[in-house]
Amino acid sequence: MHKKLFIPGPVDVAEDVLSKMATPMIGHRTKDASKLQRSISDKLRQLMYTKNEILLSTSSGSGLMEGAIRSCTRKKAAVFSVGAFGNRWYDMAVANNVSADLFKSDMGEPTTPEMVDEVLATGNYDLVTITHNETSTGIMNPVGAIAEVIKKYPDVVFCLDAVSSLAGSKINVDALGVDICIASTQKALGLPPGLAVCSISEKAIEAAKNVKHRGFYLDLLALYNYIQKKDYQYPSTPSLSHMFALDYQLDKILEEGLDERFNRHIQMAEVVRAWAKKNFDLFCDTSYSSNTLTTIKNTRGISVADLNKKLAEKGYMISNGYGDLKEKTFRIAHMADTTVEQIKELLNIIDEMLELK
Amino acid sequence: MHKKLFIPGPVDVAEDVLSKMATPMIGHRTKDASKLQRSISDKLRQLMYTKNEILLSTSSGSGLMEGAIRSCTRKKAAVFSVGAFGNRWYDMAVANNVSADLFKSDMGEPTTPEMVDEVLATGNYDLVTITHNETSTGIMNPVGAIAEVIKKYPDVVFCLDAVSSLAGSKINVDALGVDICIASTQKALGLPPGLAVCSISEKAIEAAKNVKHRGFYLDLLALYNYIQKKDYQYPSTPSLSHMFALDYQLDKILEEGLDERFNRHIQMAEVVRAWAKKNFDLFCDTSYSSNTLTTIKNTRGISVADLNKKLAEKGYMISNGYGDLKEKTFRIAHMADTTVEQIKELLNIIDEMLELK
Repeated sequence: MHKKLFIPGPVDVAEDVLSKMATPMIGHRTKDASKLQRSISDKLRQLMYTKNEILLSTSSGSGLMEGAIRSCTRKKAAVFSVGAFGNRWYDMAVANNVSADLFKSDMGEPTTPEMVDEVLATGNYDLVTITHNETSTGIMNPVGAIAEVIKKYPDVVFCLDAVSSLAGSKINVDALGVDICIASTQKALGLPPGLAVCSISEKAIEAAKNVKHRGFYLDLLALYNYIQKKDYQYPSTPSLSHMFALDYQLDKILEEGLDERFNRHIQMAEVVRAWAKKNFDLFCDTSYSSNTLTTIKNTRGISVADLNKKLAEKGYMISNGYGDLKEKTFRIAHMADTTVEQIKELLNIIDEMLELK
Repeated sequence: MHKKLFIPGPVDVAEDVLSKMATPMIGHRTKDASKLQRSISDKLRQLMYTKNEILLSTSSGSGLMEGAIRSCTRKKAAVFSVGAFGNRWYDMAVANNVSADLFKSDMGEPTTPEMVDEVLATGNYDLVTITHNETSTGIMNPVGAIAEVIKKYPDVVFCLDAVSSLAGSKINVDALGVDICIASTQKALGLPPGLAVCSISEKAIEAAKNVKHRGFYLDLLALYNYIQKKDYQYPSTPSLSHMFALDYQLDKILEEGLDERFNRHIQMAEVVRAWAKKNFDLFCDTSYSSNTLTTIKNTRGISVADLNKKLAEKGYMISNGYGDLKEKTFRIAHMADTTVEQIKELLNIIDEMLELK
């Protein structure tokens, strides 16, 4: 039995979108391939509110995160972390011999503009990584206020992990001054995993020109140069299946209307937060909690594993806490094409199972 | 109109296989995901004639090629090249600050066992890369004889680019002593692009343990360690769609029978070679020409671009020569699920168009 997924990726994919994954193959060096890849880039620019170039990578979001920190750190990277995926960015720097320092917030607390200001004021850093939405804890960082601080440091390349928020929460890349904004397809974009996307600014491109060993497959400058020269075609054969589906899904997203889509995510988040407050507690303060997933403190000491087993029997799936937060918390994702009604349906079923009503 | 693809990837994908790309999503941290990924690994071991571990990477074949040369070169890599994809391996080393030397054969000539012996006898190298089947020229290197030479050097990690040959030509990984055998899905495996696979030996794993900066996303040791610990699950969210399709297609490949499948590829190659010799000429000697694609010397000085345009109108597509070989050669791929009858049909149509009969 297929389970309805309320996990923070992979998400359920609408049937018509899924069917585009089965589009017959075309040559990747054809005009049709150029047209497809150009079309995706144009639509992603709308979704990201940017005039910057778009890069597509046949990899998970981690691939482009590694590409960004490795390709564009000339001196040293300041990595701000509010959980597992923030830490991952630091691990990537270390694994690539890229100089970096890690600045972790206390568990459940956001990255603050003050922290970022203090660190960048040292003048030691020329790249900063911020997690917009931390999938492991459900924190959505105050990216607007953080962005204002980063703007004071014009030499710093601003990398944003929007893997689990893009298309679920408004990210105005150009207004925020984000140089590299990264997402992957299996979260709020509502597609299967296997493709990552990012926007890239002129500043980031110039930075990469001053880095000698950027690698090959994840070298953002090489991708950028290639698509300029070859009309949006990529150096290696890309996942055309994902591209067919993404192009189609972006039409659907733009048809829904971006504001409408972001509002639907807020509404879903509010429903889950109200339920969590009534029956459990929220893991993090609502002033910085995510619009795409909610982490719930397991104040009742239920067995999350058992709950998920029971949910599975009914055809639903939520997520246990991530890493050390397993059983201490659980996570309900409300992203992509999920509706408020579906969220309410899920919560009603949990109510019945836990006899909360 | 969909064009029947006789290009060396992406290949046409059978309808039933394509439909598996539209399988509804599952969680990538579930027992079902482990089972799927273990099943693929077991079947790939049969296809590769190996007891070694299998790694899956959501990337093109280039991703795993880079991962191999970067993760396992401790001292210096000897890169043997018979075309664009051999050269690419050298570019990957340079881009990663991995010490490497490039040994190119004359255009249209194979890598010889003697060349390899001479180079490895210097004792300067601890990793060697060989192209099994060069997509840009249609050369299939004499891997058996080369493997015998490499066996004389037990400290050397043997990496084989089988991107455009695996599942189209027999590669007995364990008998050849290949440490890392790499392929991607969009060639003879008969799937859409977007996933790469490799086998990896204990020797390669041990080598990687002595390399400090292996990167993150393409670090073969990290992938290996993770799947051991997490029951065949991967560190980053993988392309589950490709995995559903690959698992299904491997069943079909094993059902056809490996010997039958390889023989069908030889038959197709013989038909194309005979046609080429009659009407044009072969780019490389039949003693080392590929079983999965044939490069034809354009001795008649036809316009390959025009021919492909006319073929497109009838719903077919072949490949022009690669890079500098454009118009001087053209390429017909005969791989994956293509039949001898389909190859004959294509050649008949070309005969009519060029008035060769």
